[in-house]
This record gives sequence, C-alpha cells and structure tokens, in this order.
Amino acid sequence: MSRILTGIQSSGRPHLGNILGAIVPGIELSKNEKNESLFFIADLHSLTTIKDAQVRQENINATAAAWLAFGFDTKKNIFYRQSHIPEVCELTWYLSCFTPYPMLANAHSFKEKSDKLSDVNAGLFTYPVLMTADIILYDADYVPVGKDQKQHLEIARDIANAFNQAYGETFVLPEPKIDERVMTIPGTDGQKMSKSYGNTIDIFLPDKKLRKQVMSIITDSTPLEEPKDPDTCNVFSIYSLLGTESQVKEMRNNYEGGNYGYGHAKQALFELIVQKFSKEREIFNTYMESPELIDKELREGEAKAKAIATKKLEVVRAKLGF
Amino acid sequence: MSRILTGIQSSGRPHLGNILGAIVPGIELSKNEKNESLFFIADLHSLTTIKDAQVRQENINATAAAWLAFGFDTKKNIFYRQSHIPEVCELTWYLSCFTPYPMLANAHSFKEKSDKLSDVNAGLFTYPVLMTADIILYDADYVPVGKDQKQHLEIARDIANAFNQAYGETFVLPEPKIDERVMTIPGTDGQKMSKSYGNTIDIFLPDKKLRKQVMSIITDSTPLEEPKDPDTCNVFSIYSLLGTESQVKEMRNNYEGGNYGYGHAKQALFELIVQKFSKEREIFNTYMESPELIDKELREGEAKAKAIATKKLEVVRAKLGF
Repeated sequence: MSRILTGIQSSGRPHLGNILGAIVPGIELSKNEKNESLFFIADLHSLTTIKDAQVRQENINATAAAWLAFGFDTKKNIFYRQSHIPEVCELTWYLSCFTPYPMLANAHSFKEKSDKLSDVNAGLFTYPVLMTADIILYDADYVPVGKDQKQHLEIARDIANAFNQAYGETFVLPEPKIDERVMTIPGTDGQKMSKSYGNTIDIFLPDKKLRKQVMSIITDSTPLEEPKDPDTCNVFSIYSLLGTESQVKEMRNNYEGGNYGYGHAKQALFELIVQKFSKEREIFNTYMESPELIDKELREGEAKAKAIATKKLEVVRAKLGF
Repeated sequence: MSRILTGIQSSGRPHLGNILGAIVPGIELSKNEKNESLFFIADLHSLTTIKDAQVRQENINATAAAWLAFGFDTKKNIFYRQSHIPEVCELTWYLSCFTPYPMLANAHSFKEKSDKLSDVNAGLFTYPVLMTADIILYDADYVPVGKDQKQHLEIARDIANAFNQAYGETFVLPEPKIDERVMTIPGTDGQKMSKSYGNTIDIFLPDKKLRKQVMSIITDSTPLEEPKDPDTCNVFSIYSLLGTESQVKEMRNNYEGGNYGYGHAKQALFELIVQKFSKEREIFNTYMESPELIDKELREGEAKAKAIATKKLEVVRAKLGF
C-alpha cells in the first residue's frame, strides 16, 4: 500500500487543459486499489499570488466541484483543503529551522523572480518549505510531479533527511512520480492552454459563452471550399483529444475533403464538448449552486487528514522538545 | 487599558543579568493596574538555534520557574509558552505573503549573518515574521524592546499596516516601548553578563557551585592590606546592585580602608546573594523538582492566550477567504 499525495492548484476555475492534464489522470490514478490517495486543494499556497477573499473562495469551490463532477471518489480517497489542516503551518516553522537559507535562495522558482525582488513576498521565497510540510506531514510515499517540480521534491527529501539525521527516522522520504507522458493541451491560440495566456476553454460555462470561446479558436484563412490540413489546426487537435476514434476519423475526412469550413469544425467541437461532458457540467453546476454540498464532501476528508496530521505532529513535537 | 506583550527568550537558565535586567523590571511593569500584560516564553524562536529537545525543555522550565520564583502573578497576567498556541504559525504563513522579501533580507539580524549564509537556516531569515505574528495576533499596544530590537517592531508595524491597507482595520499597530534606562549587569569578567561570554552568575545553583562562580570574579592584584578602589572592581559593582544603601556604604569603607581582601568581598557578595534571594531560590527549586507545577501555571495562561488568538484568527481567515 503506497500513499500518494497530490496538491491541486486553486488559482482559477479548472479549464479543459486542467481537466485533461490533471483531473482525469489524477482520478484514474486514485482508482488503483493498491494506493491510498490524498488530494488537497493548495489554498494556502494561493495566498502568495491571490489576495482577494472572494476569488479564493470561488476558486476553491470550483476546483473541488470540478474534481467531484468528474467522479472523484471522496470515500476511497482523502480530499481536503490545505488550510483546514493548519498543523501544516506549525510543521513549516519547525522545518524552516532545518532548511539552509541558500537552499531556498537557489531554488529555480525563486531565482526566476530574482530580477524583480521588490515584487517577491516572503511566502514565495519560503513556499518550498510549506510544500515539504504538505508532503511529509502525511508520510507520502509518492508525489506525482511535472519535471519542473522535481527540484521541490529534492528539497522536500533534503529537509526530511536533515530532520531524520538529527532525531532518528521520523519522516518518509517522498519519491517523485514523474509522468513522462504529460499531456499538453493546446489552447485557443495553439500555445499550451493556460490561464495566464488567456487561451482557455472553460467547459463549465453556459452554452452561449462556451460556444463563444470555442468559436474564438485561431485558425488559418484557408477558404471554406478548399481541403484543410487537420494536423496543423488547433480546432482539430482539441477535437481529437475528445472525440472517439471514429469521430476523429470522420473529422479528418471532413478537413481533407474540402467544402468544410472552420466554422463547421468549431460548431462540431462545441457540440462534442456539450455532449461528452453533459453529466459533468450538470454536476458541477449543482455543486456551485450549493457550496454547502462541496463543504460536506471536503469535511469528511479533512477529518481523516487531520487525524494523520495530528498524530504525526505529536511525534515531531516530542522529538523537538515542545 | 493597554495591552503589553513581552517575549521572554528561553535560550538558557536565567542568570543574575537576566533577573536584574529583565525579570525584575518586567514583573514591576506587570503590576501596573492600567496594563494587561502578556508574557510568553519564546520557545518556537529557540528552535532556530537550539536543536536538543531536553535542553529546550529544561530552558523552558527554568525560565518559567525563575519568573514564578520572583513573584510573577499568573492570575493577573497571561503567561504562556509560544508553542502552545500554534495559531501563531498559521498567522506567520499568512503574514509572510504580505512581507516583501527585501524587508527580511535587509533586517540587521540577517545582515549580520550574511557572511556565513551556509550556517543560516530559513527560520533565522523569516523569524521577524514569526515575531510580528507573536505581537499582532494578540493586538498588543506596546512591546518593551531594547534599542537593537527596534527594527523588528518597525517590521511588525509595516506588515500589520500592509494587511490593514488591503483588508481594512484588522491589527493594532504595536508601539515599541524603549526603556532608556536599560541596566547592564556586569559579569564575572566585567563585560556585560551573558551566557555567550561564559561570565554569568546563576543564583539558583546550590551553595557550593554558586560560591565557586562568585569566587571566579576577576579582580586586580592589589595586596590584601592595601586600600582598594571600589569603583573599578567587578565584585563591588555587582554587590552595589544587590545591597541596601548601608550595606553598599559599609562595603565601600571596607575597600577604601585596606586590610580587606577581594576574597572577603567575594564571600560577602556570596552571602548577600544567598540571603537576598533565599525565598526565590527555594521556590525555583521547588518548581524545578515538580515541573507539573510549572505546567499547571502555564496552562492557565495558555487557555486565555488561546481564546484571544482563536478569535483573532477567525477574523483574519474570513478576510482572506479561508
């Protein structure tokens, strides 16, 4: 039995890129009977960049609602808001006393920002320590990370190791679980779909607004009647991530046959999204209309997470003499 | 009614310098009926330098026992261990997201260490934020500080102010209360008495060990029979801090009259300490033999401190959207 821990960013409403790149594979992973999975919404981390309370609340709710809509099993797994287990902040202080300053100063995530230090808050500097606490408080064996997050796992291992060296075996050293097949979902402009590029498709929008986003996908100016190359088209590349094999084959024929405009392809993509995600969109909206239902699901996970955290922290306090 | 908050270092067993320089004046201040006083043992801060659990526990107990022995009123005042209100760590994370990185990088306490960064842990870097949380979590109006601590109060005010600007009045901006009359107690070598100089007198030691410390006070080599200058003698300067006016006058006469050796003066100082602090030494030892009595006194204060902290943190969480 391995314990797998996944932090879920809550910096915005999940878009199609988040869904295909993180939510669907995350839920797949969580179904493995050999794993115990902890998934947390990293709302404490969000404070480094998001200061608005209402935006934070909406993001937390939308993130939870999206995972729930896609069928995340909150009975089998432990699903919680990071901020509801404030023990992680206490552990962060302890660990920071075992973290060499230069280790944080040399972290890529900090160095990237070091040309504009006046805009960097201390939370951005110390967040690898909070991230370490997130992981080792729960004795996670594996943490699925992208390649860009590998250094944070190394920091977590180093800090946990420094503590273990001083006080005997206390923390599990977490292993990164790097998925090489990381799926890059193209946005409406062909770049990686990302909130910061403003090129997202939000499948939970009402039909009209969703259709408008799909219609905004950038295409070239090949006239309607001419054949088109599906392999260089943003509409086709998104369509092929969602459609069945036969649907995608048919769409390819439409492109190559001519007399099929980008407007037709976009309309087909819009209809595919609405049809494919009809259940998820409905569930998402039910949750968003009744946030107390989200709260209820999360509170169950929080009780379980709290029990693990409290027990671990008691051990840590005793070893440190608190 | 002003709320005064005092952090008590717990980096060692309180010595005569701590007693005369901090404990006695602190207790005097706490008797003012117009003040509500919070005194906390800064054990979380001690982790930046002390890693040994047993040493920490002994330091915490000895610090509390010394304050109690000198008559600190734990009913009127709020006396607590910082680590027993872990809410302060949660607030520290929130505040760190409102603390510009350069503010910490420019703190004197960090700059002093910047020539040996590899020995600096992240806790030493971020502790002004923890110190800010210590203060503003309890809405302290005044914080008695030495001149060297003034910058930390400025940091606390800046962070509290940044938060208030963003979310409306939330925290009281603390004022430093700088005591210009700060008493410097000479150690056995004439330098300021300090654990780091190894020149302390520990009045709580058993007679024999205490006498040995007093006998180790450095003097010049004026022969016994010759008159001596009291105003350049370490023994006399400590004696004059403890004796009554007439005792000090008599000692001055002994010095100036000749036929009175430094050994005599040291013996007199030793006897004065034993006599003057007989009650305090007894109470201290009673507490140290029964740490559960210390725990009992502190738990009362911790319940009161926790009530204030919890209420404040609820306000903060709501403003931040947690």
